[in-house]
Amino acid sequence: MNELIERFAGRLEEIRQRRPVVHNITNFVVMNFTANALLALGASPVMAHAPEEVEEMAALAQAVVLNIGTLSTPWIGSMFLAARAASAHSIPIVLDPVGAGATRFRTETARRMLQQLRPAIVRANASEILALAGEPTHTRGVDSADTVAAARSAALELARRNHVVVSLTGIEDYVTDGARTAAIANGHPLMGRVTGTGCVATALTGAFCAVEPDPWLAACGALIVIGIAGELAARTHRRPGSFQTGILDALDEIDRAILQTNARLTTALP
Amino acid sequence: MNELIERFAGRLEEIRQRRPVVHNITNFVVMNFTANALLALGASPVMAHAPEEVEEMAALAQAVVLNIGTLSTPWIGSMFLAARAASAHSIPIVLDPVGAGATRFRTETARRMLQQLRPAIVRANASEILALAGEPTHTRGVDSADTVAAARSAALELARRNHVVVSLTGIEDYVTDGARTAAIANGHPLMGRVTGTGCVATALTGAFCAVEPDPWLAACGALIVIGIAGELAARTHRRPGSFQTGILDALDEIDRAILQTNARLTTALP
Amino acid sequence: MNELIERFAGRLEEIRQRRPVVHNITNFVVMNFTANALLALGASPVMAHAPEEVEEMAALAQAVVLNIGTLSTPWIGSMFLAARAASAHSIPIVLDPVGAGATRFRTETARRMLQQLRPAIVRANASEILALAGEPTHTRGVDSADTVAAARSAALELARRNHVVVSLTGIEDYVTDGARTAAIANGHPLMGRVTGTGCVATALTGAFCAVEPDPWLAACGALIVIGIAGELAARTHRRPGSFQTGILDALDEIDRAILQTNARLTTALP
Repeated sequence: MNELIERFAGRLEEIRQRRPVVHNITNFVVMNFTANALLALGASPVMAHAPEEVEEMAALAQAVVLNIGTLSTPWIGSMFLAARAASAHSIPIVLDPVGAGATRFRTETARRMLQQLRPAIVRANASEILALAGEPTHTRGVDSADTVAAARSAALELARRNHVVVSLTGIEDYVTDGARTAAIANGHPLMGRVTGTGCVATALTGAFCAVEPDPWLAACGALIVIGIAGELAARTHRRPGSFQTGILDALDEIDRAILQTNARLTTALP
Repeated sequence: MNELIERFAGRLEEIRQRRPVVHNITNFVVMNFTANALLALGASPVMAHAPEEVEEMAALAQAVVLNIGTLSTPWIGSMFLAARAASAHSIPIVLDPVGAGATRFRTETARRMLQQLRPAIVRANASEILALAGEPTHTRGVDSADTVAAARSAALELARRNHVVVSLTGIEDYVTDGARTAAIANGHPLMGRVTGTGCVATALTGAFCAVEPDPWLAACGALIVIGIAGELAARTHRRPGSFQTGILDALDEIDRAILQTNARLTTALP
Repeated sequence: MNELIERFAGRLEEIRQRRPVVHNITNFVVMNFTANALLALGASPVMAHAPEEVEEMAALAQAVVLNIGTLSTPWIGSMFLAARAASAHSIPIVLDPVGAGATRFRTETARRMLQQLRPAIVRANASEILALAGEPTHTRGVDSADTVAAARSAALELARRNHVVVSLTGIEDYVTDGARTAAIANGHPLMGRVTGTGCVATALTGAFCAVEPDPWLAACGALIVIGIAGELAARTHRRPGSFQTGILDALDEIDRAILQTNARLTTALP
């Protein structure tokens, strides 16, 4: 296990040295927090959504992150343009299907993006994964054991069918490429009390993708980092306002030694 | 009086247990702060504005909050769609006519929304209420005694004419349904130095509406909570940046005992 | 030198007394931080972008700030409308050509705005200034000595050709109207780890423009203030999350004495 954590630590150092450009087309609620999280980690965030420039911007980036949190038809059009430019340049795409399952528009858009844009990674929670897989959801609050099991099974199936890494977050995170699986037990309940911690997990996944060619490892590294950031922030901040600030500080603080001491990763390889 | 505060405390506990979904169509400046304030209070914020999904999203919510802070014609269209879906499902609507009186577009939009969308509550400051009522305004800075008196009179008139609760914030807040009135003396001057504290008051009003069927009580409860949050934050934070963080922490901290000790409410019943 | 700092201190006091309205048409990422920075300084931020109201809003303001960070064709249209209304009322315009040089759309839009809207001040970094001047850029990270020299030379040329004050930020800032030049050595490296510190510098430049008729002085005053704010914040906050909060607190704290002690300004007058 130490070997994998060593690899994540190396990738984190690479992010800080190379400062990869992560092009985000994301939602209005989390743009500031996401950009600051990427900067705190060491990456270079760019936000741009105009159809006139997204192809050019995506081609300049080392990863493209698409997040449908406040989706609209014009923004979806820009996401498709950016993704196609990214694919043409072999730049990895990370998809966050925020709210899939809540409305038909979200569910259908998320499925269409998964099928047509060929993201390297989908980062989502249990109800979103179930919606992507076409299974009944309506979960809210802490997921039941049944929901977690159903979502993991759907994640495996989605990963195999779509050749995508599924990065399923929850009390315990679960990352699979359809063959390898990882369970990550980092994180803190206060993360659910701050808007955008899931979106930040997705954005950091983009940063790891920019330096790590194996998307399963990139997804695992990012979830460990955001999970530990939540744990570090919760040590000194007990309420959500200061906790959010603490997450940004922790993303800046995390290093090889902190990763080695705190990472809680279990893998199952085929 | 203790009886009313007890009721607000019970509603606050209900928000934390039931975590009602509050669907916000709000302005770009405050989306993050508003979502975090709702989460800190205990509610479940949702932001969605696409015409393809707002009706479905509004119907899933327990309250709908419409805020015209960065209004545009397409977003107004979505607000109308969401409001009509909410009304069809008897879901309460809270309106924040940000900047009414500053431009004709805002004033006319705010009036049209008040008349056609039948909000349960309008939360606004003195100049916005005067603009809605068709009276001359041009107030800026601390409202004069004359302005306060004129705005309260306009609030009463608006409440009666439109069958709406008017939640008028200022140094001392004033809430009326045209018959009952309440004055709330909670709050702190630093709240005027942080963008979006008014918008947060509106969003929290939505959260209270989701669990309190009497909109006059919902409006009073929300203003007491945000006012006390400002007071608590000001005890440890003397400057606006850390004060904003402190407001979120305080919204998480407020409980029955804090409400009982700090609420400053005066009511006049018919 | 003390005389200039005295003048900036007087202007800062004027901002706090008169609370000028600064109308921002800016990017989604920094709207909240920008509005809070203007409030912390003492100004009155307004954000509005609908074509139906931007002319009226701009005419109510004492300065208009245009920032193309998340530009799109409809928003550019609104920026042109607002700028023309501002010019018609002799209200100063400050332009932030975020990302000029990164995509053709940005470069061309920024040049068009510079030439057609006659801003009083352009606030930008080295690569943006080089892009505006039509010179090759592709700088990222800390600017080399060569890049700094090239950007200053381009700034002088742009200032003369376009009758604009160029406010070029970097390790050492450089402000010129084509005749006078100033070098400002305030600031802190952590400012590059928080999104929007450049955009905040631009917005504060708008606030100074609202009370200082000489745009070269307005630009210098604003850069000294944001630079010192960064230094003050870095004294107590060593990581980017809390540092961002600290910048807002520092903008509220800065006064005449702090300016006199900390300003690091060198001028060259013709």
